[in-house]
Amino acid sequence: MSVTTPQGFVAAGIASGIKTNGNKDLALVVNQGPDLSAAAVFTANRVAAAPVHYSRTVIADGQAKAVVLNSGGANACTGKAGYADTVATAERVADRLGTQASDVLVCSTGLIGERLPMQTLLTGVDRINEQLTTDGGTDAAEAIMTTDTVAKTASASGTGYSIGGMAKGAGMLAPELATMLVVLTTDAKLSSAQAEEFLNQAMRVSFNRVDADGCMSTNDTVVLMASGASSVEPDADEFQELLDQVTVDLAKQLVADAEGASHEIEITVVNAASEEDAEMVARTVSRSALFKTAIFGNDPNWGRVVSAVGTTSAEFDPDMLDVTINGVQVCRGCAIGEPRENVDLSGREVSVEIDLHAGDHSATLWTIDLTHDYVEENSAYSS
Amino acid sequence: MSVTTPQGFVAAGIASGIKTNGNKDLALVVNQGPDLSAAAVFTANRVAAAPVHYSRTVIADGQAKAVVLNSGGANACTGKAGYADTVATAERVADRLGTQASDVLVCSTGLIGERLPMQTLLTGVDRINEQLTTDGGTDAAEAIMTTDTVAKTASASGTGYSIGGMAKGAGMLAPELATMLVVLTTDAKLSSAQAEEFLNQAMRVSFNRVDADGCMSTNDTVVLMASGASSVEPDADEFQELLDQVTVDLAKQLVADAEGASHEIEITVVNAASEEDAEMVARTVSRSALFKTAIFGNDPNWGRVVSAVGTTSAEFDPDMLDVTINGVQVCRGCAIGEPRENVDLSGREVSVEIDLHAGDHSATLWTIDLTHDYVEENSAYSS
Repeated sequence: MSVTTPQGFVAAGIASGIKTNGNKDLALVVNQGPDLSAAAVFTANRVAAAPVHYSRTVIADGQAKAVVLNSGGANACTGKAGYADTVATAERVADRLGTQASDVLVCSTGLIGERLPMQTLLTGVDRINEQLTTDGGTDAAEAIMTTDTVAKTASASGTGYSIGGMAKGAGMLAPELATMLVVLTTDAKLSSAQAEEFLNQAMRVSFNRVDADGCMSTNDTVVLMASGASSVEPDADEFQELLDQVTVDLAKQLVADAEGASHEIEITVVNAASEEDAEMVARTVSRSALFKTAIFGNDPNWGRVVSAVGTTSAEFDPDMLDVTINGVQVCRGCAIGEPRENVDLSGREVSVEIDLHAGDHSATLWTIDLTHDYVEENSAYSS
Repeated sequence: MSVTTPQGFVAAGIASGIKTNGNKDLALVVNQGPDLSAAAVFTANRVAAAPVHYSRTVIADGQAKAVVLNSGGANACTGKAGYADTVATAERVADRLGTQASDVLVCSTGLIGERLPMQTLLTGVDRINEQLTTDGGTDAAEAIMTTDTVAKTASASGTGYSIGGMAKGAGMLAPELATMLVVLTTDAKLSSAQAEEFLNQAMRVSFNRVDADGCMSTNDTVVLMASGASSVEPDADEFQELLDQVTVDLAKQLVADAEGASHEIEITVVNAASEEDAEMVARTVSRSALFKTAIFGNDPNWGRVVSAVGTTSAEFDPDMLDVTINGVQVCRGCAIGEPRENVDLSGREVSVEIDLHAGDHSATLWTIDLTHDYVEENSAYSS
């Protein structure tokens, strides 16, 4: 159950020495074909890292042979020299695999504003190339961890094909760690256009719905590669459903491993005029520091929910808002509902449902609370 | 140096019993004329409290005789009954002052979702009416405090007139406390239209530039009343300058008293293509939880600044960004600048300058860091 679960993929993860603590820091995932269909989504941050700029050019033709990923350095805000480092990495991988650098995606994660130790990294590429195996997915998932406490993998089986994946990111809580890197693989037969369409749809309901602290990385990259090794042309609905399942699984693993979280919060907005409205409202609530500290304090403070909802441009009548926390409708018609004392927030999982009474669309988003540990981990990280 | 500094104003602040701890909780500021020109700005939150809805109708004609303000309860999300409470408060004040309820502004601050103790409040109105004096401004400023640790007042002297003001709000950190209530007074002669124009301009560079945690209250209200008692028609430039001075003074007092802050941060964006761009960039950085926790950790983490800037739609070339923290240009051309070790963040005041190299506009915004005390105060408040 990893990127090497589908046929046609080999991977490896090694400690190349980029991280000075001896942990794994270099991963390589290779598509052995017969197809090289691929799609990728990158951070929307205009301050994007060198590997993002480079990988955008690689994916433009819808083909990719391999993804090389390093932890231990984001290679962001490193100027032309940093971009040259990314190109050199891709070229070395291509050379070892007997392919073109223009078919090698590069991902980096770690601190912003520092150059990568290139000699170490390139020597690592030579070594990792020798270790590629059909069960290397777990090692690869370990090699992309930064402040993650567990490696994150997932898979799903379709009719004659499978989908695998790995992700890193400690809850999207530290963008300069290039929080979210995801590699998805499948042995289904997909055209590049299909891969792109499936991936975009899956993003919409999974990684785009994880919003731990509203911060956006310079390095976020999500890649889908299809080898076609099963020779199966999948049913589109089934494939989409399975890909959504794998990506939602990975997304929830990111939240579950979020730095410093004491509650995992699922925010569902129902009866919205549009899915966009539903998502906007959920995202705004998920970004309210006051709401998030209240949940940390086991306080079902619905006033902080409705005051966040009230700042959005979503369609709703302010007098019609209902808020239900862990099954108790504490706010009804934007006024006092059931007693807040009835809400039990002692567990780790929290559900918040917001009813806009404005239509029949809905959206779910996952976030975490704002805790002392969050402040500690994020204030102490680089100092 | 308070709302009773200008001629033509009396005020008082008493402990009416709304707060159960015996602290002052009711304030009244009365304009004795001859003019009753007034302007007000309210929260943009669509979930607005009853007193905001009511006061919007009062100010519509540009005239106001008095402002009554209570702490100890926001009267927000209290439905039609809560609105009736606000009307009853205005009617009682009007009755005692011999004026119309339609000339009495009402402000409330405290917890959302609870009715006010109306018998206590109305009895308090009867009592406070007996205590109005020309030096009651300080008592009034004390009576509107919630989690504020100090009363906030300011004043400025013009050519033959003066401007006074009071504010409450512990750094805009707790919107359900109806964070920001401000009353400004002047004895200059202003038309209603002038009052509105001066107030809107002052808001732009003061209270709208304080963004402690990005949360917006249901109750925010800023009022300017002009008595004309000095008979002086002020020079517009001078008056604006002085009003800006008073409002910036009060705004910075709000930040200085922010709940749980260990650093006061001044973010200035320079060389922007427009003032809107400059403000957008400053606001986005001020809302980055990662940037704010880094400052708490005395960490000049410029990567967290540029990654926040990169999420905006402001006009700039990502390769041209400079970031200077406490005088040290740690990021130059979106790459490594002076050594971060040169930045001293041990003091309480922090300045961050972001150069967009895209024009000649600028904007300054004030915020605070994200600390353990912030989490503690905001998680423990209502539980």
